[in-house]
Amino acid sequence: MRSKLLFSLDPPKVLVFGFGLIILLGTLLLTLPSATVDGRGLPLLDALFTATSATCVTGLVVVDTGDTFTKFGEMIILSMIQIGGLGFMSFATLLAFILGKRISFKERLIIQESLNNETVEGIVRLVKRIFLFTAVIEIAGGVILSMRFSQNMAAGKAIYYGFFHAISNFNNAGFDIMGGYKGLTAYTSDPIVNITMITLISFGGIGFIVMNELYEYRRTRRLSLHSKIVLSVSGILVFAGALMIFILEYKNPSTLKPMSMTGKMFGALYQAVTPRTAGSNTLNIPDLKQSTLFLIIFLMFIGASPGSTGGGIKTTTFAILLGAVKSQIRGREDVTFFGRRVDYSIISKALTVTLIALFLVGSITMVLTITEPGKDFLMLFFEAVSAFSTVGLSMGLTPELSSYGKILILITMFAGRVGPLTLAFAVARKRKETHYRHPAGKVMIG
Amino acid sequence: MRSKLLFSLDPPKVLVFGFGLIILLGTLLLTLPSATVDGRGLPLLDALFTATSATCVTGLVVVDTGDTFTKFGEMIILSMIQIGGLGFMSFATLLAFILGKRISFKERLIIQESLNNETVEGIVRLVKRIFLFTAVIEIAGGVILSMRFSQNMAAGKAIYYGFFHAISNFNNAGFDIMGGYKGLTAYTSDPIVNITMITLISFGGIGFIVMNELYEYRRTRRLSLHSKIVLSVSGILVFAGALMIFILEYKNPSTLKPMSMTGKMFGALYQAVTPRTAGSNTLNIPDLKQSTLFLIIFLMFIGASPGSTGGGIKTTTFAILLGAVKSQIRGREDVTFFGRRVDYSIISKALTVTLIALFLVGSITMVLTITEPGKDFLMLFFEAVSAFSTVGLSMGLTPELSSYGKILILITMFAGRVGPLTLAFAVARKRKETHYRHPAGKVMIG
Ligand SMILES: [K+]
Ligand SMILES: [K+]
Repeated sequence: MRSKLLFSLDPPKVLVFGFGLIILLGTLLLTLPSATVDGRGLPLLDALFTATSATCVTGLVVVDTGDTFTKFGEMIILSMIQIGGLGFMSFATLLAFILGKRISFKERLIIQESLNNETVEGIVRLVKRIFLFTAVIEIAGGVILSMRFSQNMAAGKAIYYGFFHAISNFNNAGFDIMGGYKGLTAYTSDPIVNITMITLISFGGIGFIVMNELYEYRRTRRLSLHSKIVLSVSGILVFAGALMIFILEYKNPSTLKPMSMTGKMFGALYQAVTPRTAGSNTLNIPDLKQSTLFLIIFLMFIGASPGSTGGGIKTTTFAILLGAVKSQIRGREDVTFFGRRVDYSIISKALTVTLIALFLVGSITMVLTITEPGKDFLMLFFEAVSAFSTVGLSMGLTPELSSYGKILILITMFAGRVGPLTLAFAVARKRKETHYRHPAGKVMIG
Repeated sequence: MRSKLLFSLDPPKVLVFGFGLIILLGTLLLTLPSATVDGRGLPLLDALFTATSATCVTGLVVVDTGDTFTKFGEMIILSMIQIGGLGFMSFATLLAFILGKRISFKERLIIQESLNNETVEGIVRLVKRIFLFTAVIEIAGGVILSMRFSQNMAAGKAIYYGFFHAISNFNNAGFDIMGGYKGLTAYTSDPIVNITMITLISFGGIGFIVMNELYEYRRTRRLSLHSKIVLSVSGILVFAGALMIFILEYKNPSTLKPMSMTGKMFGALYQAVTPRTAGSNTLNIPDLKQSTLFLIIFLMFIGASPGSTGGGIKTTTFAILLGAVKSQIRGREDVTFFGRRVDYSIISKALTVTLIALFLVGSITMVLTITEPGKDFLMLFFEAVSAFSTVGLSMGLTPELSSYGKILILITMFAGRVGPLTLAFAVARKRKETHYRHPAGKVMIG
């Protein structure tokens, strides 16, 4: 009885089992003959890969979604995206809420700032609001995209395409049904598609807590430290990233060079937004220069913001680390942002998340060099980071992966999705109070 | 008057100007006609590159040392290696000594443990001992290598070769005069060369403080926390690295496969030792598998230990970061090693050094993708880490570098040599005491 209760209350286990179940169910459905255009259903490993990619809102694909699946198959994928994205966002937000209860008054502040409530009623209201936000944003995006697509296709198809891509992008899922692994390359210069997609990705990527604070800003006239960091870091990464991509690709005849100035600007902006961690693309990724690809790897590794539909080590983690370095170099005792001090415990968490992520990404890249012999190192590195941060961009490796490679990447996507939250939960437990402290020792650094 | 005094007392400036002067002098000498076999002297940029590589004890070469230089030229290079290596080791040790004086009783302990003295007399004795250790180890290594080489060449040449390679390896300089960019590949299976070289590299790489403590161990019967961490981490990295290289290269027909079991073991061991950061090699680096090369990049990035002739972020930095992660995951409040607590200030220094190193290596790799178009990404990444950590291993890029690439890599070698120490000095200054502390804020991580 007690163990059952414990199980039902252990959030990381609920997360892992919940996602696992959805993936298994999706896998079975995708193997059905009616799921694929060829009427034979997807082979088991490919179905497992696709279901994992959809549920973990990654977007890496071993078969082209638009070319391979029937509408039924596509709807299965879209359902997994919606359940995975919404489930994860709710879960992450709830977890922050529960952790707030478990730990201390201080830890709870940020949730309370948004909701001022910690009862069951509060939780229900929280989840309701997450669903409401999702519905409103996805419908708005879907309608706009449908209108735009209706200029090129029949109304019914336009609505279907509009909503599929709105849902996929808000959930940072990276799936598209354009066919031929083309992604959104047909719309590189299109202002409506660009602005709509970038808005959907950005809302999905900043996380519910920030969205909620922005929504309530009219009334509260204030933002929490968390929101200020998320918004400023996301903004800096997008604009600095876009500027760098613009410069690096300006003379690349396969990407920006032949485009109009509007196309060049949107192309650079979109490719700077998508690593946060949408995974859709308007430029053909393998055509980008090595320097741009390496920059995108860096942006993908940072990824989105906590409690969002995106992955990566998170914008806040990156900011905390930079803040710690800055304060160290300036000889300051405290790490501060916007006039607020950040405790050592938070810096230690950021360090832990980042080092574990570096270690995992490094190890996965190394195993890929063994399972995928003869493949370009950058391609493998790119794929490992993309899978870990659940981004879904690829230099074209995914469909060519060996069976071992597919299994490795699908495990990486799963670990990249449930891992950081499980880890955040583990490290958020109250630190053991020790009555005895070891004497201090001295170590030289650098 | 006052500014002159300040200048003469600012150790980072002394370091930068001292190394700069030696490099400029060496550059001039290497452009002399009598320095090169072709009687024309080395072109200016190549001379600057070689002088920087020698003085910063790196070992990256744009021309083959043995084939290009006369004995006079080689002696200039060897002199720069000796001055650079000895100068740096003395400087780093003295700096720890001076910093000990400036800061606090606690910070000073480690030096005092070795020397029990902080007067001018103490400094003189310290430097004398560094010179003595260097002389004894280099002479012992030189004699052994000379005897071994005399089996294959005339006595005079064997002595010259023996001492050149002993000095180069103790100083972790990575230069060899075997010709044809071959390195020590003719001695992969030779036990005497392997054991001698590995011993020289290891002594040079653990740093003077640890060497001194080992030397005094007969009397004191104790090691400081610093030495314990240096010795255990170095040991683990070498043996785990050797095991992994052994497994990864076992079936590689270009490296270990055709060798005897002894050759395989020495080959794996040597390539696991040399990233700490000797730079000589007994296997041909471009023949290694991508997985092995990536492992070597990781080992090179960590590099040697503080106050040594080697570079990198240092074994202690790596250990401190791992310790912080371990304590975070286990929910412990303190980070401890061997029953000693490590203060947050040390963790913060380790974090700062590592993040700045990652940023530099990433940026340099990115610039190389622009200045060296069409080159393999792994090759560029390998070269950037090798230069930054002053390792000197290369996948063969160095001689093919463009002029921009050469300039970038020589700046990287210089920054990699004087940078971490300058940084260590900067971050070791007493943190400003603030009477006002900002209120604590909350940020979500991961
Ligand atoms: K994605
Ligand atoms: K070296």
